[in-house]
Amino acid sequence: MAADAEPPFPHVAIVGFGLIGGSLGLAIRERWPKAMIIAIDRKDVIETAMRLGAADIGGDDLGLAAGAELIVLAAPALANVDVLLRLEEFVPGPALVTDVSSTKRAITEAARTLPSRLRFIGGHPLAGAAVGGVEAARADLFTLRPWILTPGGTPSDTTLAGWLSALGAKVRFMTPEAHDELLAYISHLPQMTASALMSVVGAKAGAQGLSHAGRGLRDTTRLASSPADVWRDIAATNRDHLAAALEELIAVLQNIKDDLSADGGTVETVFASAAEWKRVLEEPFDK
Amino acid sequence: MAADAEPPFPHVAIVGFGLIGGSLGLAIRERWPKAMIIAIDRKDVIETAMRLGAADIGGDDLGLAAGAELIVLAAPALANVDVLLRLEEFVPGPALVTDVSSTKRAITEAARTLPSRLRFIGGHPLAGAAVGGVEAARADLFTLRPWILTPGGTPSDTTLAGWLSALGAKVRFMTPEAHDELLAYISHLPQMTASALMSVVGAKAGAQGLSHAGRGLRDTTRLASSPADVWRDIAATNRDHLAAALEELIAVLQNIKDDLSADGGTVETVFASAAEWKRVLEEPFDK
Repeated sequence: MAADAEPPFPHVAIVGFGLIGGSLGLAIRERWPKAMIIAIDRKDVIETAMRLGAADIGGDDLGLAAGAELIVLAAPALANVDVLLRLEEFVPGPALVTDVSSTKRAITEAARTLPSRLRFIGGHPLAGAAVGGVEAARADLFTLRPWILTPGGTPSDTTLAGWLSALGAKVRFMTPEAHDELLAYISHLPQMTASALMSVVGAKAGAQGLSHAGRGLRDTTRLASSPADVWRDIAATNRDHLAAALEELIAVLQNIKDDLSADGGTVETVFASAAEWKRVLEEPFDK
Repeated sequence: MAADAEPPFPHVAIVGFGLIGGSLGLAIRERWPKAMIIAIDRKDVIETAMRLGAADIGGDDLGLAAGAELIVLAAPALANVDVLLRLEEFVPGPALVTDVSSTKRAITEAARTLPSRLRFIGGHPLAGAAVGGVEAARADLFTLRPWILTPGGTPSDTTLAGWLSALGAKVRFMTPEAHDELLAYISHLPQMTASALMSVVGAKAGAQGLSHAGRGLRDTTRLASSPADVWRDIAATNRDHLAAALEELIAVLQNIKDDLSADGGTVETVFASAAEWKRVLEEPFDK
């Protein structure tokens, strides 16, 4: 398709214009210059969004979403649920609604209450950056990154999947349940671990001690700058799976602690397993 | 100093020629072309070392260290203690002995048994790479990186510190006790955590699940490729401090798990503390 092709969704409303929302705006602008991007967020955020060229119009009024063929909820998880429940009041016509929340069961459950004119398909782009906010938005944030769709019980819609593919993302499908369990391990647990580790190490070492730290600590704690509000919502909407994941990690750390003399070989067993999975993780994987 | 200056230690024996030993060889070669670098390791390792130009002579015989003014023990921690205890037999003349072990109490304790002609000053370069082995050696591995010396009770020697500074490292001094406690937090705990995390996540997600993982998991587990033998020794020679550090991390993870609803605000408290220490960690710090 040429860059001046007719956009599948001529009007896209993005509610919550941070790193993800802003990057989506920039990506749409690049892919379909004719599409109108409507940004809904606080006025100061909208000002930045307009300055960056990530939106055509914007404001803090949910009514701006009326008339959009696609509404993307791009705030933290619980805020997305809130907005979803208020959409009916502000959007009189039919629209496809999706979201970018890091957990999918809570919002999929909430979407059951939507009137039939508002069709919901949950989504989760597996893309991000250490620094959030619309200022960090990038048109290529989703390029070649997985974008999971969780149609759940609703019949699938190829329009949304095709639209995301045209934006450069690699679309994959999962149930909301499978999504939340997998993400508890590959995303939520690493985040909690990085933050817990940084808080423990910082409190003990202090600024002077940290000045001796090397790249190992820096990489292991890269996620520790993540915003608390986003993760509070993720934790609250994925309690069961995240609790199970934390329990497993605690058990392994406890085993290491109980066997530091290495008489039982725990350190070596854990390291061998870790090195093997790390090799798998770093393998090129194309699907 | 010009590159052709007389080397402070004309003959340097390096016992254990992996990433650290090999990089030291390359750094010495670059800084003092006239210095003779004697590599002691398995024959196949020596072959690689010679091919890389990291050593002048080498072999698997500790007797090669006789005649060196400086002997650097650069094997894993417990192997360094073993070699230290056998030096007396192989080295008849006076020599300065140092090491690069990641823990400093065990080897400092062992060094008390050395005859007075063999003077020991413990050392620890805070430099490394995800991949070990002499093949990964780099002349600039120590450039601008901290190199901790732990003279402990022995009178300090400015020759070794000056030699390391001339190689580009930033020399700092600590007691073996303070070193081991600090490193338990800024190095050993992150390593154990990264490996434990990778083993838990890999076992649950499998290859298919891992294919959805993003940069967050990759960075958090970068250390998970580390060799088990090196870390078994570190764990065994720093049990008390590492156990205390693991206990603190387990307690924070347990608190998060018990408060995932965020009613008690644990997630936000931990994230706020983590983000603040992460900021400190990433601050430019020059000393």
